[in-house]
Amino acid sequence: MAVVVTRRETFTAGHRLFNPSFSDERNREVFGKCSSPSGHGHNYVLEVSVAGGLDPETGYVMDLGTLSAILHETVIDDVDHRNLNTDVEWLAGRIPTTEVLADAIWDRLEERLPAGCLWRVRVRETEKNWAERRRDPA
Amino acid sequence: MAVVVTRRETFTAGHRLFNPSFSDERNREVFGKCSSPSGHGHNYVLEVSVAGGLDPETGYVMDLGTLSAILHETVIDDVDHRNLNTDVEWLAGRIPTTEVLADAIWDRLEERLPAGCLWRVRVRETEKNWAERRRDPA
Amino acid sequence: MAVVVTRRETFTAGHRLFNPSFSDERNREVFGKCSSPSGHGHNYVLEVSVAGGLDPETGYVMDLGTLSAILHETVIDDVDHRNLNTDVEWLAGRIPTTEVLADAIWDRLEERLPAGCLWRVRVRETEKNWAERRRDPA
Amino acid sequence: MAVVVTRRETFTAGHRLFNPSFSDERNREVFGKCSSPSGHGHNYVLEVSVAGGLDPETGYVMDLGTLSAILHETVIDDVDHRNLNTDVEWLAGRIPTTEVLADAIWDRLEERLPAGCLWRVRVRETEKNWAERRRDPA
Amino acid sequence: MAVVVTRRETFTAGHRLFNPSFSDERNREVFGKCSSPSGHGHNYVLEVSVAGGLDPETGYVMDLGTLSAILHETVIDDVDHRNLNTDVEWLAGRIPTTEVLADAIWDRLEERLPAGCLWRVRVRETEKNWAERRRDPA
Amino acid sequence: MAVVVTRRETFTAGHRLFNPSFSDERNREVFGKCSSPSGHGHNYVLEVSVAGGLDPETGYVMDLGTLSAILHETVIDDVDHRNLNTDVEWLAGRIPTTEVLADAIWDRLEERLPAGCLWRVRVRETEKNWAERRRDPA
Repeated sequence: MAVVVTRRETFTAGHRLFNPSFSDERNREVFGKCSSPSGHGHNYVLEVSVAGGLDPETGYVMDLGTLSAILHETVIDDVDHRNLNTDVEWLAGRIPTTEVLADAIWDRLEERLPAGCLWRVRVRETEKNWAERRRDPA
Repeated sequence: MAVVVTRRETFTAGHRLFNPSFSDERNREVFGKCSSPSGHGHNYVLEVSVAGGLDPETGYVMDLGTLSAILHETVIDDVDHRNLNTDVEWLAGRIPTTEVLADAIWDRLEERLPAGCLWRVRVRETEKNWAERRRDPA
Repeated sequence: MAVVVTRRETFTAGHRLFNPSFSDERNREVFGKCSSPSGHGHNYVLEVSVAGGLDPETGYVMDLGTLSAILHETVIDDVDHRNLNTDVEWLAGRIPTTEVLADAIWDRLEERLPAGCLWRVRVRETEKNWAERRRDPA
Repeated sequence: MAVVVTRRETFTAGHRLFNPSFSDERNREVFGKCSSPSGHGHNYVLEVSVAGGLDPETGYVMDLGTLSAILHETVIDDVDHRNLNTDVEWLAGRIPTTEVLADAIWDRLEERLPAGCLWRVRVRETEKNWAERRRDPA
Repeated sequence: MAVVVTRRETFTAGHRLFNPSFSDERNREVFGKCSSPSGHGHNYVLEVSVAGGLDPETGYVMDLGTLSAILHETVIDDVDHRNLNTDVEWLAGRIPTTEVLADAIWDRLEERLPAGCLWRVRVRETEKNWAERRRDPA
Repeated sequence: MAVVVTRRETFTAGHRLFNPSFSDERNREVFGKCSSPSGHGHNYVLEVSVAGGLDPETGYVMDLGTLSAILHETVIDDVDHRNLNTDVEWLAGRIPTTEVLADAIWDRLEERLPAGCLWRVRVRETEKNWAERRRDPA
């Protein structure tokens, strides 16, 4: 009888898709215009869901104001108005695709939130493309 | 091979988050500005999903016009342009958070719909906060 | 060659439409379910536009961060999570329809912003209803 | 640790809901104004999700540009600016409801995509009605 | 000091763009896939704005419930779930582009509404294309 | 009796707000986190409106497919997946704020479109901030 609550936040960041171990030609082949050397960026949307029972005293699964504060401390403050290739320690060495972002943000939040409550991390890169890591994507 | 269909409805309601067994100070601490005594309100969005096989004669899991009528009779007519703390019998004694709404609406609909077809009840309180009860949130 | 820039903010408030000089019956006739005594509420959207030339040093008509701060001080802090019938000094004695909100917010902002730059105040009450006061609605 | 990525596409089509084995009266009874003989249409939204591990060389589950090309070849080119009752071979003999579309598109994509990666096909018919077929709607 | 209020409604219709006085080839050249003989359709959005002073007794420019009823009687009931080429008397002989719809709906509403209050008729055909007739588009 | 038609396009770009004639400190003061040296970016939305009479043979003010092609050739191809500070000839020497983009795109389109038909250029930088240059913003 668990209930899932979700909080939506936004951030803005620059990035470039390329693999430093690829040749320039291979990068263009694999990543197309997303590999352009001067970079580009997105208005990212982050939607984080937690699941749990309803606290009978508050009617909350979790106070979404608290969740929002955790999202800012753990994620948004690190990535907002930053370059995802160069400025974010916990993305170092990874190619900042939407799915890598969802995956890395899941790992950061799982450590920070009460055990077992994280249910889904969804990252929207554009209105056409998004990615999510889920507790059970079966 | 089940398919899930969803109907979206909207309603407008007033509410206030507070627990009458808390002191005023504790209510402000827990619920912040949501506990303000004169109340506030939201444009709620209700998205209800049912799952089932496709009827070979109609191509429907369920006629969404029928589902909409059930949502109005069972939920919307009771809450639209009402105060969720004082006007709704089936919320009496509960703190009207988004997740409590999703939970209570699930219970009402499960009684009213054919057994086993209800799949998800999602309630959006603002563009940043929403809650859902699902058949299996695993 | 003026350019118009717009800032979008949101707030949540309770209200009830009724005219205290009307009978209960006349209030129900004119305002329908919006006059329900226990009140209801909305997620309001406020979109404020200012027009002007481009500052050659900044590329700005006006810093939208500054405009946002002014909107919070002048409007949002007074109405967010409040009851528009009882809690807002500058709406006292007025019926808080969407168009009255747009009109009253225009008056407050016009006093606060540099002369002549305010161009439009739009208030969205629901996804179906909105109102705006404009410099020239001709 | 699978991640799910989604691509959103749009198309525009005409359709009419009716069962040729029903009488006109029964069609009106079951499908209401959706059975009107001259037909109507919709701006459909198609959201297709695939699940998989992250390719360490690209950071991709699947290149969404590739997925988009597959969606166009397999689905969009056949249905865009067409009549779903008369123009689409793989819908022949079916009533083109939203859930039938989701079901038929799933079958087409499952054949075309790498085995086991298709995770969800969602079709939005209007802002109020949508359908999805999922790997496991439990 | 006029204020503008807007009401949003939706309808669903089929159409085909072609000029019967053109050859088939010329129709394809001018209208492309929109001229496909079996027709297609859209989820149209209609946004109608009226301007006026604030009634001191109600706080209304115009009751948007009344405006909504007028829009249904005058426009929506004629076009919803219909074919715009064949089923709508007041579009007979016209090519049902988005701008023709906005133009024709303006003419119908101007006759029906109090003189001089109609301010803008906007018709959205898709999320990428829309048209509006305005009192003064200068 | 002119009618206005609008076409919506999107593009993705990187940028940084800073004035090279300012000190680093003054840049941070004026532009805040938008001046961060490694840059960031946005999903921009471009909405271009043209006004004119209805062509009696086509029902068009202007074919929006043609307008879309012009927007791609004149604007989108130059800015999409580019850095607005370094990669775009027609923005050289300007600070790429939203209002500068609207202003510069207006100038490019006015040269390219039939005289007098351009009516508004709107650029949305985020869901909270947008700018527009209009024929007459009075």
